[in-house]
Amino acid sequence: MADTGWTSCATSLKGVILDMCGVLYDSGEGDGVAIPGSVEAVRRLKASDLKLRFCTNETQAVREKFVAKLQRLGFDICISEVFSPAPAAVAVLRERGLRPHLLVYDALMPEFDGVDKSNPNCVVIGDAAEKFSYANMNEAFRVLIGLEKPTLFSLGKGKYYKETDGLKLDVGVYMKALEYACDVEAEVIGKPSATFFLSVLNDMALQPHEVMMIGDDLVNDVGGAQQVGMKGVQVRTGKYRPSDQQHPTVTADGTADHLAQAVDMILSRRGKP
Amino acid sequence: MADTGWTSCATSLKGVILDMCGVLYDSGEGDGVAIPGSVEAVRRLKASDLKLRFCTNETQAVREKFVAKLQRLGFDICISEVFSPAPAAVAVLRERGLRPHLLVYDALMPEFDGVDKSNPNCVVIGDAAEKFSYANMNEAFRVLIGLEKPTLFSLGKGKYYKETDGLKLDVGVYMKALEYACDVEAEVIGKPSATFFLSVLNDMALQPHEVMMIGDDLVNDVGGAQQVGMKGVQVRTGKYRPSDQQHPTVTADGTADHLAQAVDMILSRRGKP
Repeated sequence: MADTGWTSCATSLKGVILDMCGVLYDSGEGDGVAIPGSVEAVRRLKASDLKLRFCTNETQAVREKFVAKLQRLGFDICISEVFSPAPAAVAVLRERGLRPHLLVYDALMPEFDGVDKSNPNCVVIGDAAEKFSYANMNEAFRVLIGLEKPTLFSLGKGKYYKETDGLKLDVGVYMKALEYACDVEAEVIGKPSATFFLSVLNDMALQPHEVMMIGDDLVNDVGGAQQVGMKGVQVRTGKYRPSDQQHPTVTADGTADHLAQAVDMILSRRGKP
Repeated sequence: MADTGWTSCATSLKGVILDMCGVLYDSGEGDGVAIPGSVEAVRRLKASDLKLRFCTNETQAVREKFVAKLQRLGFDICISEVFSPAPAAVAVLRERGLRPHLLVYDALMPEFDGVDKSNPNCVVIGDAAEKFSYANMNEAFRVLIGLEKPTLFSLGKGKYYKETDGLKLDVGVYMKALEYACDVEAEVIGKPSATFFLSVLNDMALQPHEVMMIGDDLVNDVGGAQQVGMKGVQVRTGKYRPSDQQHPTVTADGTADHLAQAVDMILSRRGKP
């Protein structure tokens, strides 16, 4: 049974931001699989008068690669519409003259090609998956603990995500591990950081109240968006769990079974399906 | 320069508890190495009228194995004098009818031989070192997240320890990771848990104020001991770092360069060297 109360804001919307993994597709072996109806839902949003952006904490590949993957899955999407943490991190490192030790997925490394990584004075971690070995965690830890003022950047702070073969631990879990080891608080780059959402709104040239975020992650998508004044809607795909509805601090403005249903409800309400 | 103020309590002492790794020896390849003077310091304590126990969060081997290692390094020590988390955990599991999924060092597994591990309804983690792979962490996570009420036991909550080739992440770091992933608080078995220290005092048949703990870990050895009313002295060996002296919550009752110096100061003060 769809709850439709939240669609009352649909008429005043000017833009939508979509999370990617768990909303457009489920990741896994190869390209993963498109979530039924999502390809068509993106097509309908693009055909509407709403501005559309994609906002992901995807850090397992450079943007070129994962946009190409989405295209192979049938999505009409291009690189300039996609916001992800690695390019934002590179900007921060440059701004502050920092040289990172990187613990990220191999396929993400090219995003940091132009960055000086000699004699590191900070650590950047992303979702490194299998690379989160004990040896690699120790190496990152030793860099941090050897610094006068340990500086740790985390590309997102997600707890886990869903692949086709089950739930997998995300970067936030390893961020907490290093935070505890070194008595530091990581600087999060990516969702749910306000800076990150504001950079997307800036690119859309819209105000927060004019934009809705749709995601499967209650804290990072919905909570992060709400924190800057956007509406946040959760879909019951990807990492959604029924217990999200009793979350102690974040309540979604609305929920839908999947992206196709959410888009259908928004566009119907606007009367321009 | 030794600070000697803390030795004023030495005359009323009736017992001493020693941490092992970082106080008696530094672990590493093979048996590791005895810290200079420690073998003799233990011999002197045993020859005194003080009761002596050893209290460790060592979980990389069954007690039989690591006591044998200490004996090979020259220490006069026997199994019944040593308190470690695994046997305490087995007692808790039995008491509460819990069946653990174990993420512990292979060599520790025999401690859990008699415990039903089928269809697990809790997770026990110890210092698993290289076994803290992404795959193993995911496995433990999936067991926890699949339980109605996730129950996580951690054999200690140390941040890191020192081996001969450098600092290494300890179990507490991975405990924090799983706590964050599953929104649970782990039950710590071992130092600095009050239950654990009290079980040692009980075995000594002494009151807390009659006993001094000597360790290299400010929070787990010194802080844990102080919390139950014992004195806590830190030695500047093992994982000691100068920044410990500015720790926000724990202040050692005293410090010494190494165990040999601490023991010398205590026994001299008592006038029975």
